[in-house]
Parts: sequence; structure tokens; C-alpha cells
Amino acid sequence: MKVVCSKEKLVEGINIVQKAVSSKSTQQILEGILLIADSSLKLTGSDLEIGIECCIEADIMNEGSIVINSRMFGDIVRKLPDSEVLIEVIENDKVIIECDNSHFEIKGIEPHGYPSLPYVESDNSYCVLQNVLRDMIRQTIFSVSVDENRSILTGLLIESKDNNLILVGIDGFRMALRRKYSMKIDSEFRVIVPGKTMNEIVKILQQSETEMSIISSKNFIMFDIGNVKIISKLIDGEYLNYNTIIPDEFETKVVVNTKEMLYSLERASLISNEEKKFPVKLTIDDNKIIISSKTEIGAVREEVHVIDMNGERLDVGFNPRYLIDALKVIDDEKVTIVFSSDVGPCTLKPISSNNFSYMILPVRLKSEA
Amino acid sequence: MKVVCSKEKLVEGINIVQKAVSSKSTQQILEGILLIADSSLKLTGSDLEIGIECCIEADIMNEGSIVINSRMFGDIVRKLPDSEVLIEVIENDKVIIECDNSHFEIKGIEPHGYPSLPYVESDNSYCVLQNVLRDMIRQTIFSVSVDENRSILTGLLIESKDNNLILVGIDGFRMALRRKYSMKIDSEFRVIVPGKTMNEIVKILQQSETEMSIISSKNFIMFDIGNVKIISKLIDGEYLNYNTIIPDEFETKVVVNTKEMLYSLERASLISNEEKKFPVKLTIDDNKIIISSKTEIGAVREEVHVIDMNGERLDVGFNPRYLIDALKVIDDEKVTIVFSSDVGPCTLKPISSNNFSYMILPVRLKSEA
Repeated sequence: MKVVCSKEKLVEGINIVQKAVSSKSTQQILEGILLIADSSLKLTGSDLEIGIECCIEADIMNEGSIVINSRMFGDIVRKLPDSEVLIEVIENDKVIIECDNSHFEIKGIEPHGYPSLPYVESDNSYCVLQNVLRDMIRQTIFSVSVDENRSILTGLLIESKDNNLILVGIDGFRMALRRKYSMKIDSEFRVIVPGKTMNEIVKILQQSETEMSIISSKNFIMFDIGNVKIISKLIDGEYLNYNTIIPDEFETKVVVNTKEMLYSLERASLISNEEKKFPVKLTIDDNKIIISSKTEIGAVREEVHVIDMNGERLDVGFNPRYLIDALKVIDDEKVTIVFSSDVGPCTLKPISSNNFSYMILPVRLKSEA
Repeated sequence: MKVVCSKEKLVEGINIVQKAVSSKSTQQILEGILLIADSSLKLTGSDLEIGIECCIEADIMNEGSIVINSRMFGDIVRKLPDSEVLIEVIENDKVIIECDNSHFEIKGIEPHGYPSLPYVESDNSYCVLQNVLRDMIRQTIFSVSVDENRSILTGLLIESKDNNLILVGIDGFRMALRRKYSMKIDSEFRVIVPGKTMNEIVKILQQSETEMSIISSKNFIMFDIGNVKIISKLIDGEYLNYNTIIPDEFETKVVVNTKEMLYSLERASLISNEEKKFPVKLTIDDNKIIISSKTEIGAVREEVHVIDMNGERLDVGFNPRYLIDALKVIDDEKVTIVFSSDVGPCTLKPISSNNFSYMILPVRLKSEA
């Protein structure tokens, strides 16, 4: 193998595929990046759960392939001058990396044992804009469970149904649901993608209005972003029926300024220990929400102006973290908060859209016990 | 105590004095910030080694004092709206913090037990510009030893002598010396300030041409930056005679581009394990420096153009970290490197100034053993 490519493109490619490479793997070859030179230079990183491929433009002098330790390769290439980089494999899987007056010779790994990424047939494909999918993931991923005992909930549901792309995260205490209507749906599918995969994808997606496709098969999903392809295992099993979770009835409904509510909750959550957030009490009354909390550290009382209110006065307790997580990803200036009762779920929605719903269960307040 | 001040000024003050507060202290009171309200509001943080005072403008309604847990106070104040903050001490050392619609009530600590900072007499004072002292510290602090077995060397020497302010850091393998000539010297002194103190001071000093003073007494030093005063213990003992360390004779002398040499060394140091840097070999020959290293990971060869050369061809080994540290803080485009021999000290100097000298000892190369 002998190729020449720009340092800039090579760094971009390494940065992307490294997101799939574990720094410590039981298989040494998986700590490496697979380089394949044929029509272009293809970099691949994988941890067997998720695989990322990135093709970069290169001048291919000799075709071939090699695996290079990911950390070492990244560290060297990032430090090279902004110029053309030569990568050449010589005898005994030795790799020459050359750029201007720099000359490296490092040990490569014979590429034969590198696991090939699964081929995902493009029967079930769905087109979406990169920036749209990025926002949809950002607005749901935080609700995915980290509790491995309920493995289904450690995944994000991605569903194509009735001309909608729907993402749902549920962790048992809360749910985030994001919907996007599309005129043109090629196929319907319903898959559960590991939260870890989605966390990496959201870092790779750009805030740009370029098209990409989601292609799903029985056991795998592929996110095809042109020269970058991300392939992930799916989680097997039946996801919850999220439609039944959001209640139709309500006791109290308020509209508040999103940021004002967010900042007040952030302050209120300070009177609580770091790890396990102490609940805050919301008192909805007379066109204001009083947020209060009292712990051994002290007491806090925050007042949030209510822009619009329907229904009854209400006292209800919440884990402030859950409200904060949702308010942080609602980009609208105003948010509607619907309380079904002091024990039933509460729903948050941006005022101008029906495409995002966030549901959280209240906690029982100590004083009510 | 009852005061009102701007949130912005309060955050600035907290950020500064927090640099002296340990998050875990054997004395709970030292995890706090002392607030004293008289003519202004004075914040104090201390860990008994270093103490920082910061005065901020405030509307003093009632004089008084209190100690508030530093982390909690900082977290709350930073999250407050950008408005006026009321701080009031009520019965039982309870502290009210109020700002717009936020109301906090937290436990304070009775301020009586807070250790008072030593009074440093302003007999020996030296005036210097903030940005100058900041650069001088930045260019020497990295050479201070972290080895507690030679406690003298864990401090930075600050000397006022013959119309010069001189800072020196030595760790046994290298020395950094920075000198600044001044027309107006009030007094001469020679003190050793703990490296930890200097690391905090460099973060507080601004890149601005405002005057500040250094005031030294027998056991303490004070850096007086107007509304901020930093007081530190000194290290007791006799510092090395740094004048004898830099050799007069040389074997080889080269001028190279600072950044080119730096980047080549950074790359060459990659072929080495993370913790203990493997030495690099410098071959000075025919108007170029070849930097090379060979380890079990691989081999590297870097070529650096020599702009000017005097003396003999030379092979010499170095810990690349030491050369890198010095080159990083030399702001000049070109640097002079003087090699006394393959076993004697090497000296680096920016080409346009005699005010900065950096000396490092070579390491014996394995192949020569």
C-alpha cells in the first residue's frame, strides 16, 4: 500500500472513525484503524457494537491495506505539518508516514484479522437532513436509560411510521419523544439503537442541511452521510408502547418562559447534594410557580412568572434534573407545562410545536407522607 | 451584616479568592470564604500557605462578617441573574442571598475562628507591570521541581538585585532564568516562593500594563494588585547560586526557527511512552539538526533547518519534554541553542534578548554506553 493524501482530510477522517475505537480492547487489532487503499483511502474503526467508515480523497500509488494503532496514528498525524502525507507499507507490516521533513516508521498490524463490518441492505431507507436528525437525537438521547438491567431502555427507539420519523427515549421515570413529518417516506421500520451509538452519531452529524439516509435491516442500522458510514447493532426486543404514556386529561396547564424556568430550577437544584438530587416542590398558584427546596444545607425559593394558566392550584414534587434536561433542549422561547395531578405524569412541550413531548413522573414530597 | 453588590463583581471576586481555598480541608472553616463588610466588601480565601483577599464595591447597609462554604457560595452566585445581589446575615449565622426572584437561605459559619492573614510590611517593595510579571512567571514556573525531597527547589526564586527583577526555577535537570531590567528599584531582596503560589498568581494576573507591587518580608511575600492582594508563605533556606550554572564556553552554537524546532520535537516525542519520555538524539551537522528516536513502538527522524551555525558537528541526547517546555514559552521567532558538549549543559535563548536563559542537562544516549 502506498498513498498520498492531505493532512487535513486525514485528520478529519481519523477524528471520525476514532469514535468507534476503544482505547482498551481484548483484541489488539480493534485498538487500531483499518486503512484500505483502492479507489480512495477508506479508514475504518470498530468496537464490534458500532463501526464507522470514512472515505477520503487520496492519490493511490499502490493498493493495499494495513491496521495502525489508532491513538499513535492520530497523535502523529495531528502533529504533522499542514501538507501532503505519504503512507506506505513496507516489509513486515512496517508503516512509513512521511510529511515534509518528518519521517516516521511504526509497526502496523496485518489487516487480515480485522472484523468486516456487516453489509446493510438499503431496502428500508429513510432520507433526512443532517441537522434535523442531529437536533432530534439531541432532544431525546438524555432520556435513554443507563440501567443495564432493562437493556431495551438503554436504546433509543427510531421509528418510521405514517409519514413521520419518530425518536423516543424512556428511562422509567421520564420519556422524550421527537417527531418529524415528512412528505416522502420510502418505508416503515421500528428499531432500537444503542444509546452509545446515538451519542457518537450526534457528535459526527453536522449542523448542515445536507441529506443523509438511515438504512435499517433486521439486526443492523446504517447512517449513511456520504463519505461517512456508521453501522450499529440493534437491540433485540419489543419497545414500550409510548403512545399510551402521555395522559389526555390535565389538572393544571401553564405557559412559562423556557429559560426563566430553566435557570430557576438550576438554582433550586443547588440546595441538594451533588449525586442524588433532592426533589424540588413546585407550587402553581396565582399566575406564578414557586419552586422551593429545603435540605440540611439550606433553603431556596424561586418565583417564576406564569404567562398563561388553566386549571387548579397545585403542589407537586420533581427531581429537578429531569425538568432541567428537558428545558435545556427546548429551543422555543416559551414552553407549555401540563400537570395531570400531583401524582400523575407532567408533560412539557414547546409552545409552537407538537413535535416534541417530554413526560416526567413526579416524586412524592416528604411532607405529604 | 447586610450588603448589596453587583452579581458580576461578586463572581469575579469569588473566582479569584477561590484559588486559595482547598475543597477538602481538615478545618471546615478553611473550605469557606470569609466576607467582611466595612467600607467595602472584602472576600478572603486561604489554605494557610497562601491567602487571597479581594475587595469589591458594595452598598454596605450593616457592617459585619461571616464565612460561607466556598463551593456552595460560588455555585449559587454564578447561577444568579445578572442583577444586584443582597447578602444578609440573620440569627444563628444564617445567610440570606437574594437576587430578583431568587431567595436562598444557607448556613454560614461564625467568622471568629477564621485565621487572619499575616501583615506584610511594605518596606521592601518592588513595582512591576502585571503583564510583565505574568510573562516572567509563565517563562520560569515549569522548571520548578515537584520533588518534595528538595523543598528549596519546589519554590521559584524571586530576586531584586542590581536594578533587575530576576525569577529562577531549577529542578536539578534544568533551569529557567528570566530577568527584567528596571530603572527604579526601591529595594533589594531574595526570596523563594512556593511553586503552588506562583501557579495561582499567574492565573490571576491580567495581560494588562497596570502597575502592581511585590512586597517581601522575612517570612511572607505579598503581591498587591490594587483590589486584590495575594499573600504567601516563603520557603526557608538558601537557593542555589544560579550564576555558576550557565557555562561560558561552547562547542556548537545554532540558530533555528523556534516553532519549527518545537513542532519537530513534539512529533519526535510521540515515539515514546506517555509517562517517561524516551530521550531523543540531536545530530547537529551541515546546517541542519536531525532529531531522531527509536523505541519498541517505532522510529522517527525529523530534520530542522539551521539558520546559523558555529562550531563542531555534535551528537547529543535530551529528554524532549525539557526542550519542548522551554521552546513553548520563547515568544521570539528565532532561538539560539548553545551546546557546551555532549555531556555538558545546553542553553536556549531567544535571539533578540538576553533576559531569558534556559539551561538543560543532556542525557547519555544508550548507543554510547
